[in-house]
Amino acid sequence: MAARWHACVDIGGTKVAVSLADATADPSGPPLLHHRLSEPTVKSGPPEALSLQVLRLIDAACAGAGGTGAQVAAVGVSSCGPFVKPQGLIELAAPNICAGLGARSAGQPNDWTSLPMQAPLEDAFPLVRIENDCLAALRAERRWGALQGLDHCAYVTWSTGIGTGLCVDGHLLQGKNGNAGHAGHMFVSDDESALCGCGNVGDVEALVSGSAIARRFGLDAATLMAAARAGDTLALQQVDALCRVLGRALYNLVVTLDLQRISIGGSVFLRQQDLLLPRLRAQITGRLASLTDGFELVAAGLGDSVADCAAAALVV
Amino acid sequence: MAARWHACVDIGGTKVAVSLADATADPSGPPLLHHRLSEPTVKSGPPEALSLQVLRLIDAACAGAGGTGAQVAAVGVSSCGPFVKPQGLIELAAPNICAGLGARSAGQPNDWTSLPMQAPLEDAFPLVRIENDCLAALRAERRWGALQGLDHCAYVTWSTGIGTGLCVDGHLLQGKNGNAGHAGHMFVSDDESALCGCGNVGDVEALVSGSAIARRFGLDAATLMAAARAGDTLALQQVDALCRVLGRALYNLVVTLDLQRISIGGSVFLRQQDLLLPRLRAQITGRLASLTDGFELVAAGLGDSVADCAAAALVV
Repeated sequence: MAARWHACVDIGGTKVAVSLADATADPSGPPLLHHRLSEPTVKSGPPEALSLQVLRLIDAACAGAGGTGAQVAAVGVSSCGPFVKPQGLIELAAPNICAGLGARSAGQPNDWTSLPMQAPLEDAFPLVRIENDCLAALRAERRWGALQGLDHCAYVTWSTGIGTGLCVDGHLLQGKNGNAGHAGHMFVSDDESALCGCGNVGDVEALVSGSAIARRFGLDAATLMAAARAGDTLALQQVDALCRVLGRALYNLVVTLDLQRISIGGSVFLRQQDLLLPRLRAQITGRLASLTDGFELVAAGLGDSVADCAAAALVV
Repeated sequence: MAARWHACVDIGGTKVAVSLADATADPSGPPLLHHRLSEPTVKSGPPEALSLQVLRLIDAACAGAGGTGAQVAAVGVSSCGPFVKPQGLIELAAPNICAGLGARSAGQPNDWTSLPMQAPLEDAFPLVRIENDCLAALRAERRWGALQGLDHCAYVTWSTGIGTGLCVDGHLLQGKNGNAGHAGHMFVSDDESALCGCGNVGDVEALVSGSAIARRFGLDAATLMAAARAGDTLALQQVDALCRVLGRALYNLVVTLDLQRISIGGSVFLRQQDLLLPRLRAQITGRLASLTDGFELVAAGLGDSVADCAAAALVV
């Protein structure tokens, strides 16, 4: 059967989404993704459960489009990290999925420390590319979004977790195991009231991620932001405090890497950018002019589709 | 007159050092530097004062070696940063020298915001290379020191200021204005008791640099460390607190860049490495295994000569 599609897989701490791009599509513009399916990320069962979920969703998307998985030419997987390669093949060791990494006390229903992904997908498809979700989103934003033409830039997601993809001197940073960009695990304050899925206490992700907001304040991010908008003083203080923490992390990236622009996406941020963007910028603007002059903090140019386009950027 | 020497210039917040390397020396090993002269960094007079000091020291070193400045083939300048290029040529905008950047209240005797360096040196010598001191030291450590053969590594100085040079995927990070590596200006805690030369309150350099130790505790770093060694409980708590701050900054670099090794130099660190190294390592070891497993924190392989070798690495 002739190859018809690229399968684009976005694995996050909350949901897994699969969509299809036509294998013959023009690669110069953002891909037209179709037959998208999304489910809550599987977090129980054997460690193979997540890759089985991905395989099932790809087959279902192809069936929805009137075909089969055999018509998939390539699979791009954009996933939260970090990754490990215990057998030379990529497995996910993501604190937002694998409770065995330290978050048992946060009530995740598994004791996983890593999840096979490259091996089961390569058994099923001729070409598989798996990359950190923020690095893949950085590719998408540089190709089709808010980071076009920039050699010194980063993509940051403010979602279930906090992640970054980094580009300096036109080079996408990979690091010794391809895990560069886990700046969500930076420490930027002394607040030790929150446990991260990675086992640390008080890192950025522990304090401000979507799952952290729910754990710390007992309500989801959207509800907190709505209360702040409605004039609730405590909620507004909490939003200010969240933006102080993430804004300091962004500032740390600017002075460490001398960036031109950071684009931000993720479900927590994109729904509330008018509230959050000025507060994040306030942590950067006016500080250490030789590093911050000429720097811009912007919303993801690809908006809500940045995560799907991230997966597509790996194969289209 | 035939070219006989490379002039190697180290500009720091406390001293300026000039030494000579023979232009015909074997570049495979660390250079044999000779006729070294060192003076306190000039911090008063017109903004040209510092470049005049450098020119005078180069001439004096050549005279000491029985020649003249006309016999210098190339000048390598390893300087604390950041740099700016208001006229397209490098000027120094270093918070540890230029009090006009924010540190007036710290009592520096000038209102400089930047100092010309590239233009006056290029007027005097046929070839001039000026680079951030930690980036130059990173080159030296990768070539002759503790970072040989490593593609994911950093050099960190703990001296009058705090600086870093960063290498990821074999690429030395430069950034939009060549100022990548100013990670000493990261925020890693909520301590707002100390003002940095850059104008910020409570960044890493404000809390732990050599000049910060003197300002905050009223005694120099060596005296503080000696008291800690002698069992002074308060001094030991202060040393622990310093190492917590700098160690968190190092951890932030490891998770952001997925590094294999960091080597540390600088006058504060190198004289006290047996006291400081275990305390710094304690902030990294055992955290987020997928990033820190296989990572090493070590003392600069070039030891006390790392700063001079840094300048040499630019021209030898």
